[in-house]
Amino acid sequence: MTHHSYLRRALELARTHSRSGMNGPFGAVVVRGGEIVGEGWNRVVETSDPTAHAEILAVREAARTLGSHDLSGCVLYSSCEPCPMCLSAIYWAHIAELHFAATQEDAAAAGFDDALILSELAQKWEERRVPAHQALAREGAEVLEEWTRNPRRVPY
Amino acid sequence: MTHHSYLRRALELARTHSRSGMNGPFGAVVVRGGEIVGEGWNRVVETSDPTAHAEILAVREAARTLGSHDLSGCVLYSSCEPCPMCLSAIYWAHIAELHFAATQEDAAAAGFDDALILSELAQKWEERRVPAHQALAREGAEVLEEWTRNPRRVPY
Repeated sequence: MTHHSYLRRALELARTHSRSGMNGPFGAVVVRGGEIVGEGWNRVVETSDPTAHAEILAVREAARTLGSHDLSGCVLYSSCEPCPMCLSAIYWAHIAELHFAATQEDAAAAGFDDALILSELAQKWEERRVPAHQALAREGAEVLEEWTRNPRRVPY
Repeated sequence: MTHHSYLRRALELARTHSRSGMNGPFGAVVVRGGEIVGEGWNRVVETSDPTAHAEILAVREAARTLGSHDLSGCVLYSSCEPCPMCLSAIYWAHIAELHFAATQEDAAAAGFDDALILSELAQKWEERRVPAHQALAREGAEVLEEWTRNPRRVPY
């Protein structure tokens, strides 16, 4: 299969699963060594899960299939340019390469505003819309220091 | 209960669940109207899921508890400043307020490099480390346009 055929599969998932109106129009596929190891489509409303974006679900399924949280060597195909949450997940999963069809501008025109989140991420806490407060700084740092001294820790 | 006691619960989840070395040292709690409606701790390695960060799991549990993807009015307490994936999820979930203990600098000192992802998000595609390719732009845009014409669509 070619890059285009995997991308068309992602588009097909987006199209068919959004017809009901219940799921957002996004689909994604994770491929490793020419084989599809994970598929996902937006299920935010259907499953009452704000994190159930197509790419997140495709990454989670691929990780289950491969039995590892590390998806190095995998390629992700998405019907649309990933939002900041999904793009961050791509980095955490060590996805090697990304292919997408629609842009964030296309998504914004359909009512999905990723740009707001991206601009918020670029701000400092005091300028973000979600008020954030730090407390118990010492106790917080201690939990992380304890981790660095834990001989059984598994880095990821 | 006070802000500090919810934050201490998040720290306790981080501490106890990371002792085995299997789970990263992060915990989170979602509170609504004074009640804990979701709890989570890092389970990336244990569950082979690169998205299983404490905040993501706490948000998902809260959404299940409340039967809605919309967590407006909820407050999130995290043992550490959220990474870009989790912070984006906080926006998608419409979390009203955030409290955290350790900082991203503390996390970086323990080996968790959120700063790399944050700087990558601020780049354009051609400068990011994950190579990205756009194709089938017209077909991609059409899927989103079809959604805007779908009379059954449920916005989220």
